[in-house]
This record gives sequence, C-alpha cells and structure tokens, in this order.
Amino acid sequence: MNSTEYSADRRDIRFVQKEFLRVQQLLELDDFKDFNEELFDMAVSEGITFAEEVMAPLNKIGDEKGSHMYNGGVVTPEGFKEAWRKYADAGWMGLIAHPESGGQGFPLSVALGVLENFYGANPALYTTMMLTAGAAGLIQQFGDESQKQVYCRKMIAGQWGGTMCLSEPNAGSAVGDITTSAVKAQDGGHYLIRGTKQWISGGDHDFTDNNIHLVLARTKGAPKGPKGISLFIVPKYRLHPDGQPAESNDVATVRVEHKLGIKASPTAVLEFGAHDDCHGYLLEGENRGMAQMFRLMNHARLVVAYQGLGSASGAYRNALSYARERVQGIPVEKGKDRSQEPAAIVHHPDVRNMLLTMKATVEGVRGLIYAVGFYTDMAHHGPAETRGHYQDLVDILTPVAKNAAADQGFEAIRLGVQILGGVGYTEEFPLAQALRDTKITSIYEGTSGIQALDLVARKLRLRGGELFQTYLKELADLQPERARVESLRLAIHAWRDARSKLETTVAAVGNIAQELGPREGVFHASDLAVFFGDVTCAYYLLKMALIAEEKLAERTDDPAAAAREDEESRFYFNKIKTAEHYAFQILPRGLAVVAKVQARNFAALEAVLEE
Amino acid sequence: MNSTEYSADRRDIRFVQKEFLRVQQLLELDDFKDFNEELFDMAVSEGITFAEEVMAPLNKIGDEKGSHMYNGGVVTPEGFKEAWRKYADAGWMGLIAHPESGGQGFPLSVALGVLENFYGANPALYTTMMLTAGAAGLIQQFGDESQKQVYCRKMIAGQWGGTMCLSEPNAGSAVGDITTSAVKAQDGGHYLIRGTKQWISGGDHDFTDNNIHLVLARTKGAPKGPKGISLFIVPKYRLHPDGQPAESNDVATVRVEHKLGIKASPTAVLEFGAHDDCHGYLLEGENRGMAQMFRLMNHARLVVAYQGLGSASGAYRNALSYARERVQGIPVEKGKDRSQEPAAIVHHPDVRNMLLTMKATVEGVRGLIYAVGFYTDMAHHGPAETRGHYQDLVDILTPVAKNAAADQGFEAIRLGVQILGGVGYTEEFPLAQALRDTKITSIYEGTSGIQALDLVARKLRLRGGELFQTYLKELADLQPERARVESLRLAIHAWRDARSKLETTVAAVGNIAQELGPREGVFHASDLAVFFGDVTCAYYLLKMALIAEEKLAERTDDPAAAAREDEESRFYFNKIKTAEHYAFQILPRGLAVVAKVQARNFAALEAVLEE
Repeated sequence: MNSTEYSADRRDIRFVQKEFLRVQQLLELDDFKDFNEELFDMAVSEGITFAEEVMAPLNKIGDEKGSHMYNGGVVTPEGFKEAWRKYADAGWMGLIAHPESGGQGFPLSVALGVLENFYGANPALYTTMMLTAGAAGLIQQFGDESQKQVYCRKMIAGQWGGTMCLSEPNAGSAVGDITTSAVKAQDGGHYLIRGTKQWISGGDHDFTDNNIHLVLARTKGAPKGPKGISLFIVPKYRLHPDGQPAESNDVATVRVEHKLGIKASPTAVLEFGAHDDCHGYLLEGENRGMAQMFRLMNHARLVVAYQGLGSASGAYRNALSYARERVQGIPVEKGKDRSQEPAAIVHHPDVRNMLLTMKATVEGVRGLIYAVGFYTDMAHHGPAETRGHYQDLVDILTPVAKNAAADQGFEAIRLGVQILGGVGYTEEFPLAQALRDTKITSIYEGTSGIQALDLVARKLRLRGGELFQTYLKELADLQPERARVESLRLAIHAWRDARSKLETTVAAVGNIAQELGPREGVFHASDLAVFFGDVTCAYYLLKMALIAEEKLAERTDDPAAAAREDEESRFYFNKIKTAEHYAFQILPRGLAVVAKVQARNFAALEAVLEE
Repeated sequence: MNSTEYSADRRDIRFVQKEFLRVQQLLELDDFKDFNEELFDMAVSEGITFAEEVMAPLNKIGDEKGSHMYNGGVVTPEGFKEAWRKYADAGWMGLIAHPESGGQGFPLSVALGVLENFYGANPALYTTMMLTAGAAGLIQQFGDESQKQVYCRKMIAGQWGGTMCLSEPNAGSAVGDITTSAVKAQDGGHYLIRGTKQWISGGDHDFTDNNIHLVLARTKGAPKGPKGISLFIVPKYRLHPDGQPAESNDVATVRVEHKLGIKASPTAVLEFGAHDDCHGYLLEGENRGMAQMFRLMNHARLVVAYQGLGSASGAYRNALSYARERVQGIPVEKGKDRSQEPAAIVHHPDVRNMLLTMKATVEGVRGLIYAVGFYTDMAHHGPAETRGHYQDLVDILTPVAKNAAADQGFEAIRLGVQILGGVGYTEEFPLAQALRDTKITSIYEGTSGIQALDLVARKLRLRGGELFQTYLKELADLQPERARVESLRLAIHAWRDARSKLETTVAAVGNIAQELGPREGVFHASDLAVFFGDVTCAYYLLKMALIAEEKLAERTDDPAAAAREDEESRFYFNKIKTAEHYAFQILPRGLAVVAKVQARNFAALEAVLEE
C-alpha cells in the first residue's frame, strides 16, 4: 500500500465476506454445491492480484493516451488489448456468468471481492469487459437456443465484445422516447435497423474481431413510449454460416466522446443502417425490450456502484499512505513551541477527520453493496419461499447503493485530493484521475436524480409501501445493548434515532405528494435518497462494529492498547471507531433533510426560470 | 447567455453593487473624490466586456494546450501573450493599484464586478495577472523609494510579471519551516539567495521580459520558525543601470506541474542560486517577511474566493441555458400519459432544485465577497474611527469567504455537471473544465483546512472573541417583520435560529477546547467554517431579498404575475425565491454541525491510523 499505486483492501473484503455476511453459508445452496470455501478464497485472491498487477499498471497510461478514432475504427491505449486477452483467458469474463455460456457461476457476493477491484484498478478498461459479460448474460436469459449458441460462449470467452445501445441524441434519461426503427425484412428472420445511438460504452474498440450490440428500437406500429420498444442483437459484422464474422453489418462509428475521465473507455456514437443494410435479430419477442433491458440496467446500476466503491477505496488507501509519509506542521497540542518537531499529517485532527470520513464512506458503501450482492444471490439461488423477500431488498436498495457509491464515493475522493493538497491537484498522484473517472458514476446508467426518482416515486410506493416495510424490518435487529462500550452504544442510539426520522420523513414526503401534488412530492427525492443511503450504510457499519467487538474481546482486555500492538486488533478496533465516526460525524446530515422536508417551502418550483 | 460560452451576470452585479451595498456612497470619501458614478459603471461594464470578449475565448484552448517547458523557459498557449498585452495596455493590471505606481485606485467593491469575471472567463490566465498586481502592491507598500521606482510602474504596466514564492518541497502549509537562505553580500546592498521554491503560480512565462519574484528566505542567525523569515525582491534578470533587464540572476525553472486544471497557468518549481549568483534585495528589514507576506496572503485568499465565485457563476449560467434548451422527459405532474409532450428539463423539480442551489450559492457568495470588498474599502479609506471595525470584519470573514467560494463554488459546479448529464461529462461543454479549474481554490493560498484553523483557532479567539462579537452585531439588523410575504418572514426566522445556533456552537467548540484539549478543540473547525459561511451567505441573501421586495412593490401588486411578464420584476421575484431556497434548502445543513459538535465523539482521533 502506497500513495501512488492501486491496492485492494484485502483485509476488509475478507471481513465483509467471511466474518460479516458469511458468504460460506451459500455453499449450502444447490446451485453452489460444486464450490467450496477454498475456491471462493482463491478466486477473490487471484482476481485481486490480476487487478493489481495487470489492470492497475495500465490505468494512468490509459488516461493519458485515451481511446481515439482512427480510420473509422477505435484504437485503444497500448497494453489494453493484451490485458483484455489475459483477462478473458484467465476466465474473469465469466466469473459470475452462467455455466451454460461458459461462465463459472460464482455467487455475486463472492465475486464482488474481485469486481470492485477491477473497477478500482482500471475503470476505463473494466467498463468494456463488464458490458460484454452483461450483454452475454442478457442473451443467455432471453435469447433462443441458436442465439445463445452463436453469441454467448464467444462473448464470455472474450472473443467478441458486447454493448448496450439505449440512448439517442434526443433520448437520454427518457429512454422511452427513442426513435431508432426496426423493420421486419421480407425474407429471413431479421429486421432492418436504422438510427443513431449515443453514449455507447465500448461502442467500438480493437479488443475483439466482432462487437455484439444490444439495440433498443421500435418496430412498425409499436405503441408510443416505453411499451413499444424491442431489443435486437446487432453484430458489428454479420456471421458466416461457420459462425465467423464476415461482411460488415452497416454499423458505423461516428465519433468517440472527449470526456472528463475514463478516457480510455471508448464512448461512441454509432450509426446503424445508414445504408439500409443493418441486420438486427429480435430477442424473444416484440415490445419486450424495456423489460429485458431493465434486467440488465438494474444490474448495471449496481455495477456502477462497484466502480464508485473501488475507486473510493483505492483513493482512501493512497490518501492514508500519503498522510503517513508527509511530514508537515507542528502538532496543535504542542502549541507554538518552535523547538517541537513537525509530525506526519496523519496526526493533524482535520486530516484524521477527512481520513475517517473517507474510510467510513468506503466501508459503509462496501457493507451495503456486498449485502445487496448477498441478497441477489439469495433472490436467485436461495430457497423459493424467501426469494421474493430478498428481491424486494435488492429492488429498494439498488438506487440507494448506486447513489451512495457514486456521490459519496466522489465526495470521498474529493477529500482525498484535499488531504494531498498541492500534489493532489497534480496528475502525478492518482487522486486527480480518480476524481475525474468517478464523476461519471453519478451520470451513467441513470443519473443520481433518476435513481432518486426511482426510489421515491416508484420503489417506496410499490405495493403500498411494502418494500419499505421489508427494509425497515431488515434493519430492526440493531440494539444498543448489544454493544460492549458506551461510545458504540451511543452510536447505535444515534442511528436508531436517524432510522426513525427516515421513516417519518418518508411519510412526510408521501403526505406532501398527496396534499400538494406530484412536483412537490418528488422535490426532495435526491435529499431523501442521500438520507436513505446514510442510514443504510451506518446500519451495516454498526453491525460490523458489533462483530468486531466480539472478535476483539476474544483477543484482548485492552482494545486501545492491543490496537497499537498488533495488526488484527488494530483492524477490529478501527472498525468500531469507523462506525462511531459515521454515526456521529456523517449521519447527522440527515437532520438537514428532515428540516428541508418539514419546511414545505418550494421556492425553486415558484422561481421563474424559463425565459 | 448560452450553454457553452462565458457570460457575466451583469444584472446581479449591478444589484449587489448599486442597490444592495450602494458603492456610490464611497464617492463621499476623500480617496475616491476624483471618481464619479459613471466612471464606476463604465469600468465595470468595460471590464466585463474585456473578460467576455478577450479572455473567455482563450479559456478552452488554454486548457487543451496548457503551458509547457521549452528550452529552459515556459511557453504559454497561443493568444495568451496578446491577451496579456491588451489587458495591460487597457490598464486592467492597475485597476485597484495605487496611483503612485500607475494604478487607477478604484474601490475594491467596484472593481469586484470586473475581477470575478476575469477569473470566471479565464482563471488560468488571470492568475498570473493577479499575482503581478499583488506583488507590485506589496513592493508599493513595503519597498523603499528606489524599489518602488524601479519595479512598481513596470509591473502595473504589465511589462514585468510578479510572483510570490513561499512554498518549498518540504514546507507547504507550514510556511514557517522554509529553508531557503539569504546571505548578505560583502559588497553592495544585496543578499545571495539559495533554495528551491515550489507551486509558484506564474513562476515562468513568455508574457514579459522580466519576472519579479518575491521570495521568503532566512538570513543567517534568524530565529527558527515564522519569526525568522525575510522577504526579498528577486528579479529573474538583474537590471542594467538604465533599468532594463540584463544578465540572468541565477533563477532556473526546474519544471512546470502537470495539473488537474488551470493548465495554462504555469505552476513552476524554481531554483534560486544554484550557481551562488542569485541576488535578492531585502524589503524593508530582516525578519519581517511573514507579516509582509501575510498582507498579500490575506488579500490573495479573498482573490481566490473571486475565482470560485466567477467560475461558479459562469457554470450556473451555462447550466441554466442548457436546462432551458434541452427537452427531455414528460413532466411528473402529467403522470404516465404518453400523449403528453416532453418538456425542457428546467421544468423538472430535481433540476430546478439543483439550479436554485447553484443560484443561491453563487449569489450568496457574491453578496459575502462584495460585502467584504466594501468593508475593505472602508477599512482602508473610510473615516479613521471606523477603520478598525471594518478591518475586524474583513479579518474574520476572509477565511469564511475563501472556503465558501472554494468549496460551495466547486459543489455548485458539480451540480452543473449533473444538470447537463452525459454532455456535462464531456469537454464539449465548459462545466467539466470549470470543475477541474475550480478544484484548486480549496487548495492554494492555504487549504480549506488551514482557513478553518485560521477561523476557529485564531480569528474567533482574537481579543477574547471580540471579532466574533463584531460579526454578530453586524448581523443583528435582520428582522422578520421587515418582510412583506409570509414565506420570506419564515425564511428570516429560520435564519435567526441558525445564527443563534452558530453562536452556541462556537461557544460549544470553545468549551471542548478548554475541557478536552486542543486537538478536540479544532476537530470540528472545517464543519464550523461551513456553518459560518452558510449563515453569512444567507444573511446577505435575505438582506438582498428585502430590498428586492421593496423594488418589486414599487412595480407591481402581483409579483408572481409580473415575474412572468417583465425581466426586471422577474429578477427581483427570483431574488426573493433564491433567498428562501437558501434558508430552507441549504442552511439546514448547519443542524448537522450542531449535532456533530454536541456528540463529543472523537473516534477519528482515537482510531489508530499510524502504521
């Protein structure tokens, strides 16, 4: 661990997976009966090593060189293609993919130990990898046998790339407004696709000899809006009967975007069917496109959360290393005595405050994301009778996790830049790039505002608020008396107060919607999503702190002293302090949300901003 | 005003200067008796035009090309040198400079209408201009007659540049730890300077034929720490007897930094006296360097605040334009009815919430900064008996204004990126660059953490808390009953509550320092500085809203209707709504600070972060 290179937080990941969630209990499920704990451990450990040793060293050069158009195609930075090959050859593309398509089928909550670090090590490279696996998964789920045969294995083997093509120049957040058309060809089973797609991550690159686009389009006479959208498989090159890419399929790369970050990730504008010769193959049936795509989208939203987590975790470790190395300033407790030696900045209260805020944010978000991973595993592979329960938790927590990781992750990295000071503002240290790269997480796969609307206007209202009740029950087990030390007991009290305020504030927002109207009813959606995220992250941190207390008690009678002496005790001791810091220094911002909602002032809706 | 070009907010600046602060009252002061209101107006108007038409068009190319080392010197982007020349020729370098050095001596509170826009239009270019004027001002203040004669006029004429050289590789935030040495030469009045200086803005460039460095160094036998530091004039080229630059003065440019933003601003590492032939000329007397430099530093801190303000203001105007143009999504109040037409995103509640937060932040910070400008004018040029009073206000508000503009300005630009969504993440729109450029404001001239310490550990304690009492008295005149409408009355009530909570929280932090110790006593400094900034910005916004109410009442009996009809009414109406938005949607975050301080939990100080 140092201040310029990426390193994973192996110890914390092990804690979250094995001591907190106890992912080894998944081995009791039928779908995972061929795994064992050693396999889980090995996958996580080797995946992290791959991230650190193969992907991370390319992160800076990827940022400097970027991906560019050349001769109608896209050239990626030196080394990226080789890394892609190694990644595919080692089987990482199929880590959680279905065994039928050549995947390994690991539980998500285990794979997360790897996935967050793929993102942390090199978000620009991993984006294209992740989308390829995601697109293959969608074909696996909705494709017919022949489609699965033709596409899935090659994509999971990394021979072909994959994308999701939703947005158009005039349809971004409002995906339902797309106009790309699909006309059924007179002969053969294909459709002719025509339209322009924008913001296509991995839209074109030199990693593979074909790229399989999943394209949303409207068939003739389809209903207006989201209900009239179908999903098509559109390969860049059409296939010979032998299955090899042959002639061009009339998919042109118009440009790649010049972005603030993830510069090596080719974000393309693609034109389909400029010469009326773009073949698309319908997935499943007409007008099912939005529902299908939302399966991928919901997963992709969680995946974006991994990005925020991985980058923020890397930034925290860089900042902590720097704070330990950099000597500057005489400690405040030594007053103005100039005979005193300056100290490492990790000693200064303001720096410690920022470091713990970074740490608490990262570990709170990690707890939340891995828990959602575990709920996902249970929803897909657990006993039939509890699947609905876990799916409800996944559904309500997806927008919460995405915003928490994206926005609080970005804020944590901002603090990291601040800790480094002048050098943090240079590109010599990785924090500046991390800040730029991570900014995208609050924008793609639905902006933070869209997530907040999904939470407040949809998930909280589904089935008369049942999901929220399930969520509240899930969080009911945190009792102050379970804590051994007074400060942690008080932290749990503070959290319980926040949880209860969240409940009343959700109700208050519901009342506003009913009494004042829909505009007022969604006005505080973003604030509420933040509050939701804070209460949830704090819950997992405090649960983890209770476990840490038990572990620490087995080791020592004097935690503070032990923490100075051995690394394991230090880990547990700091875990408790991290939870306290979250409860007392971060969670209180929910009080502002309570007051904002209570005020019932909507000046922003009254101001005349239209010209 | 559009979504890609810089434009100044002329109407709001005129309001703040002429309707709120009434800067024309400064004409009654002796030092400004040669001015008149038309001159004030003309300077502001022409300065803004210069910013918009000459400086702004170079902002993007400056970012793309950056400033680079070439042949031991620095080459700036195409067009920068010409802009510098035009700027100097038009007299802008001397806008607030002393007439003795060729300046125009405008009041700061008038000049601010120009200065914020120089920064907003092109922060990378303006940084070097600003420092040149600042360095000249310091020589004007502390130099002997000959030094003033030799340097000041040429710098204010833009023939020579100027820098301030404080930081060294091992002395950044702790300036007192510098080791650059100054040894008195046996013959002649000069000293031999030796040392390396880092983070020197404008440290080398191709704008001028000489660069005048103001260098902090230690003379032989000087006391340790800040009290043993002297300030030297160190020209890049030593002067012929005729005053023209002649032989090299042994100042070498080692490198320019590769930064996240303000890329065209050459941030240099300079080596002084590698060949033992660097002449420095003492300013005033030995060991007075820190006090002298702090005169410039304090001013420079406010100047950095102008940067945050200008960039955030430009970003707000870009975001508002974009939100008016971009059509996306069916209004929430129209439900799921697909027959409805999509609306411009300015219509969507979440976007309006973000826009008003940007607007309120910008205008609150503008109110604060211009008020501090006015206090500065009164402290320097007002009646002798009130100068101390105004200087106290300037002193306590300097760190508050810097942090508010830097951190809340950055946050406002972040919201702007968010409003633009995908395109906000590209470099096709100016928001991404503004975000990168503005990040520096929380770092240079003392990080936000240093400002917070200055506020909490120094300014709040000075003379037994007298500055804080002066501040509180200054804010005592805001009464709810002065408002005409209920919503503004409630906003003032909310503000009074916040002001009183700020007072008790300042006291609570003081008690913590006394009871628990100095580390705990500064632990919440950054939080307190934010709270301080919020209460102060809200104060000025509410004062302005009361004026807007009066103006609006003169125009109409139906403000909401008038606001839809004419631009002037709209301006006043929105001013009131902006103040309400600040009071109800931003100010509540102070409640979190209150709770954080009350909790008296210092887990971050207890965690074992040292290795």
